[in-house]
Amino acid sequence: MIHSLAQKLDILKEQISHSMLEWMAQGEPAALYEPMRYAVSAGGKRLRPILLQLACESVGGHTAQALDAAVALEMVHNFTLVHDDIMDHDDLRRGRQTLHKRWDESTAILAGDGLLVLAYLALSRVKIPNPQEVWRRFSLGILKVCEGQALDKAYEQRDDLSLDDYLEMIDKKTAELFAMASEVGAIIGGGRGDQVTAMRRYGATLGRAFQIQDDLLDIVADEGELGKTIGSDLKEGKKTFLMVHALNRPDEELVRRLRERLNRNPITAEDVLAVRELLVQTGTLKAARDEIERALARARETLQPIPDNAAKNHLIQLLQLVAARRS
Amino acid sequence: MIHSLAQKLDILKEQISHSMLEWMAQGEPAALYEPMRYAVSAGGKRLRPILLQLACESVGGHTAQALDAAVALEMVHNFTLVHDDIMDHDDLRRGRQTLHKRWDESTAILAGDGLLVLAYLALSRVKIPNPQEVWRRFSLGILKVCEGQALDKAYEQRDDLSLDDYLEMIDKKTAELFAMASEVGAIIGGGRGDQVTAMRRYGATLGRAFQIQDDLLDIVADEGELGKTIGSDLKEGKKTFLMVHALNRPDEELVRRLRERLNRNPITAEDVLAVRELLVQTGTLKAARDEIERALARARETLQPIPDNAAKNHLIQLLQLVAARRS
Repeated sequence: MIHSLAQKLDILKEQISHSMLEWMAQGEPAALYEPMRYAVSAGGKRLRPILLQLACESVGGHTAQALDAAVALEMVHNFTLVHDDIMDHDDLRRGRQTLHKRWDESTAILAGDGLLVLAYLALSRVKIPNPQEVWRRFSLGILKVCEGQALDKAYEQRDDLSLDDYLEMIDKKTAELFAMASEVGAIIGGGRGDQVTAMRRYGATLGRAFQIQDDLLDIVADEGELGKTIGSDLKEGKKTFLMVHALNRPDEELVRRLRERLNRNPITAEDVLAVRELLVQTGTLKAARDEIERALARARETLQPIPDNAAKNHLIQLLQLVAARRS
Repeated sequence: MIHSLAQKLDILKEQISHSMLEWMAQGEPAALYEPMRYAVSAGGKRLRPILLQLACESVGGHTAQALDAAVALEMVHNFTLVHDDIMDHDDLRRGRQTLHKRWDESTAILAGDGLLVLAYLALSRVKIPNPQEVWRRFSLGILKVCEGQALDKAYEQRDDLSLDDYLEMIDKKTAELFAMASEVGAIIGGGRGDQVTAMRRYGATLGRAFQIQDDLLDIVADEGELGKTIGSDLKEGKKTFLMVHALNRPDEELVRRLRERLNRNPITAEDVLAVRELLVQTGTLKAARDEIERALARARETLQPIPDNAAKNHLIQLLQLVAARRS
């Protein structure tokens, strides 16, 4: 049966959410498992695990083979959100209180730890001839995410970043989980070496586009759709694509006006609007959109070693979905 | 070559510390890996990984086979210390500043995460016919530790705990890593099912004795030897063996005087001395020492299915070492 991408996404999303909750349904004490369940039941697009399963299918495997690994990956993703929200002092996530706001920091640290360990427990069920290879790549991937988060925090203190610095950071912090998802999915599906490499690149490139889109949404999205406050990256002093690009522009007067807004304390909603206007004038919003388009085009090219099939079609359509997302 | 236990411990400890640092020597950025290296280079007895290696050897394996798993386990142990220190607001660990004091909470959360992931990376190198089983038990063990830590935090708010509640908590929070160490070591060494079960029980029982000893040291140790402030459990409101035992005594007057000291804010060094004296009068210090002795005797009995060999001898001697430890 051939599904449209929307149908396929719905089916996989439902399976992943269901299986993920099953892993933690019976857990005790509630002081640990209730926050864990809260963390994973906020919804979310389940993009990374779906990518893992589509990658598995695209090289000849079945999505069901990859469900445990997909669930593991989504747990890892939620672990990073829970811990990052503590580090970034974020109060809202997907329109709800973050864990450390709803409970406290200790609870959130521990729930994040629990999610990571449960992810590895789920991963231990993957049945392939060489599971160590999956474990290794999975762990290398998460380690890179930690490195990326460390860079992100370190960058908050720096004011001299180039776009290359920025790309190094997001390639680790964000794109790596997409890369690892596609890579591990292709390994589980029994893909050839060149297919595994191609899928890894596809995920990495898609992930880069996804993060720049995320940076863009922080300033151009509708607050209700986004589920968090507009301009929260600005207020945090985050070094997004937008900031790094704009502050490296040659027009000194525009850069001076931008810095003046960014140095205000607190940064008000009016400042956020003024910054948005300045980012139009520096050409930054257009540059971000161009960079996203380029990355998505490259991602599509990387799929060349994958045979034509329904899953490959879905992987191609997924690129458009990322470009069009509003939240 | 037959080594004395002291020689053997030194050799294994050296190998474990060396290998652990090698795993993180080249890592970048320094903002992540320097705190990780700091966390694992505070010394420590490396008791859990040594146990894992001795368990492997006792069932016919070689300690070298189990080095990667041992290193993984010690990284996990250090991960729990780093995160627990944040949750418990502890400033000192092994005579040095804790990570979140030396750096900050974000750095400590992330370094702990990094240690846990690096542990799994090390574990992925274990070469045995059924690595999934090691992977599963390893993850189940860490999950139990998280459950135990959640209980520990929840118990801080409760004043009606029984010794059974207490034992459930320490069996998860502390004893589980010893149990899992012995279990995983025996699996890697190719032990029979009954030997794996026996080694798991040995570790669990040793671990219970170890934690009660730890509780005892908080109040009877020499501050310099211990590397942290005497009475820190008291000040934190921790439900230790001592507190749970003493507060469940029938002598209402002693309990009243104890509660009066424990409710002071702040609890001074003089209060700690007074509490120690009260714990002598309630028979609590003796009860703790008896419980430790009983657990160590049981641990020795569990070794019955293990053939007589040098490693088994070392496992027996290890019990005495735990009973005699000062820090």
